[in-house]
Amino acid sequence: MKLMIVGASGTLGRAVVKHLAHSHELIKVAKTQGDYQVDITSEESIKALFEKVGRVDGIISVTGNLHFSEISEMTGQGFNIGLNDKLLGQVNLALIGQNYLNEGGSITLTSGIVSQQPIKGGTNASTVNAALEGFVKSAAIELKNGQRINAISPSVVTESLDVYGPFFPGYEPVSAQRVAMAFQKSIEGGLTGQTFNVW
Amino acid sequence: MKLMIVGASGTLGRAVVKHLAHSHELIKVAKTQGDYQVDITSEESIKALFEKVGRVDGIISVTGNLHFSEISEMTGQGFNIGLNDKLLGQVNLALIGQNYLNEGGSITLTSGIVSQQPIKGGTNASTVNAALEGFVKSAAIELKNGQRINAISPSVVTESLDVYGPFFPGYEPVSAQRVAMAFQKSIEGGLTGQTFNVW
Repeated sequence: MKLMIVGASGTLGRAVVKHLAHSHELIKVAKTQGDYQVDITSEESIKALFEKVGRVDGIISVTGNLHFSEISEMTGQGFNIGLNDKLLGQVNLALIGQNYLNEGGSITLTSGIVSQQPIKGGTNASTVNAALEGFVKSAAIELKNGQRINAISPSVVTESLDVYGPFFPGYEPVSAQRVAMAFQKSIEGGLTGQTFNVW
Repeated sequence: MKLMIVGASGTLGRAVVKHLAHSHELIKVAKTQGDYQVDITSEESIKALFEKVGRVDGIISVTGNLHFSEISEMTGQGFNIGLNDKLLGQVNLALIGQNYLNEGGSITLTSGIVSQQPIKGGTNASTVNAALEGFVKSAAIELKNGQRINAISPSVVTESLDVYGPFFPGYEPVSAQRVAMAFQKSIEGGLTGQTFNVW
């Protein structure tokens, strides 16, 4: 399959690329690296990306920024960072991407464990990740031509423990390779509207 | 208790007012009606509201606009309506409101059944409602001074069946009075971080 991976240069993206490269044609997209570049906070940038790449069999998103802050210090402006970036950015990848997705193709987005198991300072992340899980559940009942959509919800990733570990006390880390397997399940399997928890 | 009800003039708001008026002091807030007015899409408007009203024992939100569209026709701009209004509007009521909430006070927001059981054309609503449920789950672990936060998730309301009924085929409607009871449970009970499904 011809698969577009947005966020290909990140920790999870590199693991997904490594896991899928032997059996699929991969188009690597990132903000500044990769085969193509995109700013997911811009609909124009996403449209331009798909115009350049053309039709694909799968769209994989492993990208999106969030805002971390104690709720007592959180502002609407800060909160909006996650809404505009990880949430609306991935939503727009799906909304625009559906028009460039071949029959039976799949869209796989990334949420995260804090939708179900919040951490201190992570209210924006919990909100955005829960939103993405609601989005795929609903979008799945409307997509046409056998198109499917799922979300992958990883725990903290072993490869990122040095940065994020302290925020996830007692959360069992998972390898990026395990997370990549969940993407394969979404892409090559038949399920839709699901969130695959990797934890 | 002194309770602020934002969205007091709507179908659910009126039922909540009727159910709670005999045992609480109610401050009714709406966009153009009520004791006070607010535009929940404006942080400044929310701050001005709380400056006028002062400290309260409970904040109840039964308000927020969504965008309904088939996913094949949905644009990022349309999708953003729900994010800015029902989602960020209620989030900002909570974020700003926490500073005006007495010790042990509660915040109760409104989500909706489509977070769990999507309807056609309701992807924006499913996303926003799921987001709100993630928000209260996470915010609850950080609120201080015994403050609590919950969400109420109603099915389609009997009193609104003439407008919304066709979009909820086979969804058992619930009376606005039943939904109002769930708000009472959140306000007068001890739970926090919960979504109370009324369906």
